Amino acid sequence: MVEPFKCDCNGRYTYPHLGNCLLNAADFHAAERKFGYVDLNAIDKSWVLSRLAIEMVEMPLPYTRLMVSTWLESAKRFFTRRNWAVKDCDGRTYGYASSVWAMIDKTTRQPVDVLSVSDGCMADYAVPDESVPIDAPSRVSINERETKEVRVLTTAFSDIDVNGHVNSIRYIEHAIDCIPSDILCNRRIRRLEAAYVAESYLGDRLHFLLDHPNEDEWSYIIAREAVDGDEREVCRVKVVIAS
Amino acid sequence: MVEPFKCDCNGRYTYPHLGNCLLNAADFHAAERKFGYVDLNAIDKSWVLSRLAIEMVEMPLPYTRLMVSTWLESAKRFFTRRNWAVKDCDGRTYGYASSVWAMIDKTTRQPVDVLSVSDGCMADYAVPDESVPIDAPSRVSINERETKEVRVLTTAFSDIDVNGHVNSIRYIEHAIDCIPSDILCNRRIRRLEAAYVAESYLGDRLHFLLDHPNEDEWSYIIAREAVDGDEREVCRVKVVIAS
Repeated sequence: MVEPFKCDCNGRYTYPHLGNCLLNAADFHAAERKFGYVDLNAIDKSWVLSRLAIEMVEMPLPYTRLMVSTWLESAKRFFTRRNWAVKDCDGRTYGYASSVWAMIDKTTRQPVDVLSVSDGCMADYAVPDESVPIDAPSRVSINERETKEVRVLTTAFSDIDVNGHVNSIRYIEHAIDCIPSDILCNRRIRRLEAAYVAESYLGDRLHFLLDHPNEDEWSYIIAREAVDGDEREVCRVKVVIAS
Repeated sequence: MVEPFKCDCNGRYTYPHLGNCLLNAADFHAAERKFGYVDLNAIDKSWVLSRLAIEMVEMPLPYTRLMVSTWLESAKRFFTRRNWAVKDCDGRTYGYASSVWAMIDKTTRQPVDVLSVSDGCMADYAVPDESVPIDAPSRVSINERETKEVRVLTTAFSDIDVNGHVNSIRYIEHAIDCIPSDILCNRRIRRLEAAYVAESYLGDRLHFLLDHPNEDEWSYIIAREAVDGDEREVCRVKVVIAS
């Protein structure tokens, strides 16, 4: 149910709320099959979201009852591909999303073969023919020489998720907030993409470097200040406005 | 259901997510009785949240199935009192909340007699004996001479709700974010209180003035910069840490 207090000033459901809803759906789907984050935690492993793309034909209005489906399209050694379809209860399609996940060992922080856990069951759950009709999530290519710093932000308690890291969707929310409000209040976001490189933590200073190659494309490198004063890339976010 | 991506680094549901859940429950309750925000919008009226208090014995863990009940305790001419109880499906109590709402005419911005709409049905729905075992939401008294500015923030697109104002709960989220992280990560918020005085809008600069009379009490005046450079009080938020 699209609750009215999850809608923006255009009266539409927001990408950040939708994004967290997709991540929760993913966790429910995985938990029911014994590879959710609680199951992985018990064997000192964790899922790491590597790439995410969300593309909406239309954002639903308040009180719409949404039906979010999610499934694995593939589970190979070091990466699984997960898709989502967002429809209402009458089958009307609002949009799709697709993602790439890695699994890591929480102690060594090294990648783990996803087929080595839960008896390799993930391969059985994969539905290789079920792709989604949107471009795959990319690495988000950015012309680094053309970037301009548009925001510096110190991460706060509300940015941090249950794992102690900045919530994956919060980067997207902060990146959207960097776009001028006359665009956000009068036009529609068609596609969002994020590529995650490293984690950031409570109190980190994040720099938002914008590459804006054309009117409709807002791409960011988000980098954290390291102790040595260097900036280390944390993730990239691309927002595409509907033309 | 307490979704894991709505939990903080302590592994507990957050006050901002709970707060929005309470407001949504209030709207559903009102809408079913024909005095929700859609119904009022149609007659050019609107609900305005005036005061809110939330007091939790314990914040639920991920995957807890919550049962939120809400009801009107009273509906007098210019104010209605609404309460909530937050339990799980086994009847275990997590906490309570209480609020005061006014109704305004959207054109004149003047208060409206709540009993003048929907044939005064709100008085029939009020359950005067059903109070909640927490202190009533107060005006949040603050020693203005003792306040210190701890944060200045320009409101962003993600702060704005479906009505075009800064979301009531966002003020609380920003106020919590001003508390040092070693407190937020190691202790528990026992009670939250907010008293709303005026609206603020996209792009407003908000000043957070802290009164911190004792270790456990963090009270803020949140004021917006007006065009004339003056600061106008928007709301007050009080956060009480469990001792």
